[in-house]
Amino acid sequence: MIRFFAAKSSISGDFISLGAEDAAHMKSLRMRPAELFVVCDGEGCDYICRLSEKGDGPVAQIVGTEPSRGEPDVDCSVYIALAKGDRLDYAVQKSVEMGAYGIFLFPSARCVSVPGDISKKTARLQRIALETAKQCGRGRVPEVTAIPSFEEAIGKAARAGLPLFFYECEEELHLREALNNANHKSHPDSPFTISIVTGPEGGFEPFEAALAKSAGLLAVSLGPRILRCETAPVAALTVIMFHLGNL
Amino acid sequence: MIRFFAAKSSISGDFISLGAEDAAHMKSLRMRPAELFVVCDGEGCDYICRLSEKGDGPVAQIVGTEPSRGEPDVDCSVYIALAKGDRLDYAVQKSVEMGAYGIFLFPSARCVSVPGDISKKTARLQRIALETAKQCGRGRVPEVTAIPSFEEAIGKAARAGLPLFFYECEEELHLREALNNANHKSHPDSPFTISIVTGPEGGFEPFEAALAKSAGLLAVSLGPRILRCETAPVAALTVIMFHLGNL
Repeated sequence: MIRFFAAKSSISGDFISLGAEDAAHMKSLRMRPAELFVVCDGEGCDYICRLSEKGDGPVAQIVGTEPSRGEPDVDCSVYIALAKGDRLDYAVQKSVEMGAYGIFLFPSARCVSVPGDISKKTARLQRIALETAKQCGRGRVPEVTAIPSFEEAIGKAARAGLPLFFYECEEELHLREALNNANHKSHPDSPFTISIVTGPEGGFEPFEAALAKSAGLLAVSLGPRILRCETAPVAALTVIMFHLGNL
Repeated sequence: MIRFFAAKSSISGDFISLGAEDAAHMKSLRMRPAELFVVCDGEGCDYICRLSEKGDGPVAQIVGTEPSRGEPDVDCSVYIALAKGDRLDYAVQKSVEMGAYGIFLFPSARCVSVPGDISKKTARLQRIALETAKQCGRGRVPEVTAIPSFEEAIGKAARAGLPLFFYECEEELHLREALNNANHKSHPDSPFTISIVTGPEGGFEPFEAALAKSAGLLAVSLGPRILRCETAPVAALTVIMFHLGNL
């Protein structure tokens, strides 16, 4: 079923008012009265709706509710170093598909492109996140946030239950070990939080790895092949979602 | 280290002759005499070489050999339904990074784009596979092959030790179960073969799923989210490589 997102505040009784953009989208899809679709409140609840008319435009009439099936039970966020071209587009789209909770962008020593106006880029990527969340059936739209410095990104990532720093010079700890060790420490009464921090083209500088480790992040490797900067966060996320039963 | 591929026939004693394209690439990288780089024979062996001159152009002087670390110990091939735009570019690039043995393209009922001249597309994708194999450190370049019909693709995929058909209506068998069941049947004396068959935008038609099952493929699901047609093969490959210790 076609899927839209709407804020909880737009729900009134059995009806959900649709924004102008969603109404235009419905029109372009040639949706007809009585057709069923899903409106998700972005907080994990799916409203099964029937297309109806009320006053000056189309509205969604609620006919049932169910929990959003596509939402993982683990809060796993990705921290992606800024990259040029369409690499961030790709990384954001695939991270949303694979179930990322939040997406953070940060500058790193070897980043070749740090845009002057990051807010424009973030807005564009937030749009990609929304469209992808609609397509793949997420129960919420992951937020795309730019973090101004490497240090702040590391500090934020370090607060997760399992903070992972992917560093290609790291031969000691494999992702599997990190996940197995962490599972023992997880608490079933609150969602387990994980952060995945991945570097730019050319990888992290050794001083960045040292900073990350001293902030409490676990340096882990993703195997013998050198993954591109947009591939690594998605591969890590895929493995983690599978390992924790969310894929 | 920078990496090139060369056929075994280009190795003569302690020297490897480089093709015109690789020589031009070295020039563009401003590589200097005595600089070290890797020439891989495409069969799992890496030659550590020093840049040298001999006769009319640069040659690679072998200073050591080692097995290619980036090559998985499982032969896992992906069978990807034809897709429009740059989706196949993406699927091929990421499949090579994640360790696919071979890449097969095939038409499927809901494919929106089946090119008249598939050989041109295949040649382009083969080029992407080569460049990616060089970048990520593979021990061989996966071959990109177009298969003319769905039936032939299924027939070929069915011959693998673990033939997997990803079908979003499949609620019964999860990828994890399929992998766990298969592990018991694997033979340590020969590389285990797996095939991953994924569908076009909009998924497979039920009659295609029925054909695949009757050919012996196992219909499996990839979790509750609907993955895009270029995301599914890469996600499946990532999970399998991790599960079998190749990531």
